[in-house]
Amino acid sequence: MSPQPLHKLVVVGVGLIGGSFALALRSLGLVQQVLGVGRSAGNLAKAKELGIIDGATSDWSEALAGADLVLVATPVAQMGRVFAAMAPHLGTATIVTDGGSTKQDVVALARAHLGAHFTRFVPGHPIAGTEFNGAEAAFPELYRNRNVVLAPLAETDPTALRRVAELWKACGAEIRQLPPDRHDAIFAAVSHLPHLLAFALVSELAARADAEEYFRFAASGFRDFTRIASSHPEMWRDICLANASAVREEIARFQAELARVDTLLAAHDGPGLEHAFDRARTARNAWLANFQKAAT
Amino acid sequence: MSPQPLHKLVVVGVGLIGGSFALALRSLGLVQQVLGVGRSAGNLAKAKELGIIDGATSDWSEALAGADLVLVATPVAQMGRVFAAMAPHLGTATIVTDGGSTKQDVVALARAHLGAHFTRFVPGHPIAGTEFNGAEAAFPELYRNRNVVLAPLAETDPTALRRVAELWKACGAEIRQLPPDRHDAIFAAVSHLPHLLAFALVSELAARADAEEYFRFAASGFRDFTRIASSHPEMWRDICLANASAVREEIARFQAELARVDTLLAAHDGPGLEHAFDRARTARNAWLANFQKAAT
Repeated sequence: MSPQPLHKLVVVGVGLIGGSFALALRSLGLVQQVLGVGRSAGNLAKAKELGIIDGATSDWSEALAGADLVLVATPVAQMGRVFAAMAPHLGTATIVTDGGSTKQDVVALARAHLGAHFTRFVPGHPIAGTEFNGAEAAFPELYRNRNVVLAPLAETDPTALRRVAELWKACGAEIRQLPPDRHDAIFAAVSHLPHLLAFALVSELAARADAEEYFRFAASGFRDFTRIASSHPEMWRDICLANASAVREEIARFQAELARVDTLLAAHDGPGLEHAFDRARTARNAWLANFQKAAT
Repeated sequence: MSPQPLHKLVVVGVGLIGGSFALALRSLGLVQQVLGVGRSAGNLAKAKELGIIDGATSDWSEALAGADLVLVATPVAQMGRVFAAMAPHLGTATIVTDGGSTKQDVVALARAHLGAHFTRFVPGHPIAGTEFNGAEAAFPELYRNRNVVLAPLAETDPTALRRVAELWKACGAEIRQLPPDRHDAIFAAVSHLPHLLAFALVSELAARADAEEYFRFAASGFRDFTRIASSHPEMWRDICLANASAVREEIARFQAELARVDTLLAAHDGPGLEHAFDRARTARNAWLANFQKAAT
């Protein structure tokens, strides 16, 4: 069953995440009007040119008047300011959701700033993305066969939750629910830590006096391992800061694992190394088979 | 100018590397006969079925009789045994080269076991590969626009060096020369360490009691970051052991870098994190532009 169409969608931060959501709903005929709000006039003009939004405004009262749904898809560090600016102008029927990569901090900010509107706030995290950003990176198929995590709270309005879930499903996504703290612990391990490792590897190499010679011999393994090091620095700064305690826990675990590997190398322990590598390969291949199956 | 064709090529270890070299030369009409030597009768039968080799033998005297070139493309830990077995049967005109991912250890093994034939040994490392292995993974285009590092020594016969270089160039590769120790230092940083990090990340996750829930939320960033964790455990055990001291140096540098990142997180140092991420993104994007240009 197709969800009830939206009269008016407001996208705050019309980048890869927000723009792709708008494009997907547009292509399905599930939204009449899309308004963009954002920091960069250039990006908003581009979004209008690309048919992602019908118009842009910096006036929150105009933006939110009659809006059914607001998707806040800015870097997470801006969300407090955005929620505070929105709150006085939100209607009593407007649902608010977000696309932030961390959930405990976003929930705390929404609780602090949205006041009575907090019950109609549905914390969300679409597990999709590329290393590109901005309106130009958006495309309507981004969410097809991807997970969208929703992290509702005890006080979250079930109708608001259902509406948001139905719209994401219409975009092709599968809905999964996690409590905010569990969400943050899991993504610290499977997303935030890998990003930090890729950033750290390239950053350390780039700082060497003879960096050029190292890079000359880097090949396809390096290319794929470091793809996420081309991600948006500000966005990842904010994610790491917002989820610092879980991320630091993962760094500590990883440092301990690396120390174990180093001990195996120091002891020339071939069977120990092969066992660790084999466990990784087996687990990764099993994961990949599932991931690919889910994507088809 | 096309290189002089080979009458007889012997490939020891008919996997991705050795098999692709044979297929490339065959497709160019640059080899009359290819003989395979290897541990696995099943893999050799498959290689024959796929038209990679004309036949296989476990008799070194038969294998090496009249051979122009021997490519040793086994995991590096087997090369000492292979060189020792080959040496008594090598003709005085036969050139030997290898495809090993480490060079100081392979050179030491060749020097120890090849005796007077050592001058006709050309240490090599084709910088190409996929996460797959075995004869079935081989394809003739593998080396197109890829680097092949040759690491000749003072005593290496220039004619042997030129012959090997010309054959790799015919396969589409670009030749680069490095001394063995510099080779090993560079590849510890740009290849061996990333492999270890990917193996360590997946291995650590897989060992958790609730691993399944973590893997459920891993997505495309994780997929690319961990692609090399699907690499061959035995091959990577051998590479890490063969290059243990350079690899351990890289682990130490990386641990120091991760500790720096952790300090930035602990201090909630947003500008410091963003600076490190930005340096990584800038360097990686510049590297990628060059890498893609070279590949076209």
